Amino acid sequence: MRPRLVLFGDSITELSFADGGWGAALADHFARKADVVLRGFSGYNTRWALRVLARAMEGAAAGAGGSDPAAVTVFFGANDASLPDRKQVHQHVPLEEYRSNLRAICAYFKEQWPSTKIILITPPPIYEPARIRDMYGEDDPSKLPERTNEAAGAYAQACLTVAKELNLPAIDIWTKMQQFPDWQTSALCDGLHFTLFGNKILFDCVLETLESIGFSQGSLQPDLPLFHDIDPKNPLKAFEI
Amino acid sequence: MRPRLVLFGDSITELSFADGGWGAALADHFARKADVVLRGFSGYNTRWALRVLARAMEGAAAGAGGSDPAAVTVFFGANDASLPDRKQVHQHVPLEEYRSNLRAICAYFKEQWPSTKIILITPPPIYEPARIRDMYGEDDPSKLPERTNEAAGAYAQACLTVAKELNLPAIDIWTKMQQFPDWQTSALCDGLHFTLFGNKILFDCVLETLESIGFSQGSLQPDLPLFHDIDPKNPLKAFEI
Repeated sequence: MRPRLVLFGDSITELSFADGGWGAALADHFARKADVVLRGFSGYNTRWALRVLARAMEGAAAGAGGSDPAAVTVFFGANDASLPDRKQVHQHVPLEEYRSNLRAICAYFKEQWPSTKIILITPPPIYEPARIRDMYGEDDPSKLPERTNEAAGAYAQACLTVAKELNLPAIDIWTKMQQFPDWQTSALCDGLHFTLFGNKILFDCVLETLESIGFSQGSLQPDLPLFHDIDPKNPLKAFEI
Repeated sequence: MRPRLVLFGDSITELSFADGGWGAALADHFARKADVVLRGFSGYNTRWALRVLARAMEGAAAGAGGSDPAAVTVFFGANDASLPDRKQVHQHVPLEEYRSNLRAICAYFKEQWPSTKIILITPPPIYEPARIRDMYGEDDPSKLPERTNEAAGAYAQACLTVAKELNLPAIDIWTKMQQFPDWQTSALCDGLHFTLFGNKILFDCVLETLESIGFSQGSLQPDLPLFHDIDPKNPLKAFEI
């Protein structure tokens, strides 16, 4: 049976099948070799994610008798890092609780799916002027952003700490993205969510991380004959399986 | 558990998660309400599809104890309609066998997944000059195309006949696409596969057909609270479920 990749996260995961999205790109890349299962929940922080975890994963694994997913990406923190004294206070989760929620999410997956590789993804960087525009329009530039890059960086660091502690692979998209020129607008469309280019950056990181855990185009076999392996003189021979 | 849509077909299905693809668009549209499972097999005709059907569907349903998929699209014929005396002869399947293979595929689904709605999709129209270029390059315009629009139309008609006979919903993408101006190049990129616009046409048809069988954004409930339904003053209330 085809291995599965489960994408668990907030809006950046939920939106990952929109045009040029990193989730759709994974599904396309592994079209003949793996299933990609979307479990994105816009606006969710780790507190809410933890609360719904069991229900969120219904149907994500292969069902009774099937194998565990090959890997699951856990991509939260952008909402947890909303500042506690600003507009999106209800999404805020204190840093220490974020860490402990991430640990609990990983513990759940280890318990439910012992053979599944967990990949942690840090929250992305934040471009504050675009957040102010997104929240308040152009009218009042004196407003304060509901998220800051500094806070996102602290949550990114906490995510990396948990990954290290649990010996899990992690993608530090907060740092990675900021290495690209004009990342503020080339990688982010509203100071938080991804442009096509931002999606491409994360897609490349996920592929690279999957490869590091032995999950790649090269290492996976297609479950059924590929067209270019079918002998035009005797096509049915390829199906004698 | 989330309902599932299974997309079963040839390359036009396999490629449906590439940028702007109709499969990714479905996954995005139903991101919080349904899972979309990709089972596309480039180059396959109904003869080969029938041969691999059981294996192709491994993991596509929810597994033991789970529900049948809500719907499956069956989208073959473009390869069956390759002409028997041209370059892609090994993909050709005679019209009568195409009809009988389609019936057998539908019978399999009815047997395995009694409650699943089967949606047949006809092969798309063909733009022959682009097929010649795709097969032979620009060098020799005297070459003959391996597929013709006329042949594709005959297979489309056969597909509609089977749908009528089995009382199944069908999408006549062969006719539908030809209603758009410059469909030859606006909807098709190589005389056979879909442009972004072609993908959009099919996506709209699939949504419309799903709606006709009671499967739509409006009729489906999200399995977990949507962000805009969460009370900022008491977020956890939404999760008391």
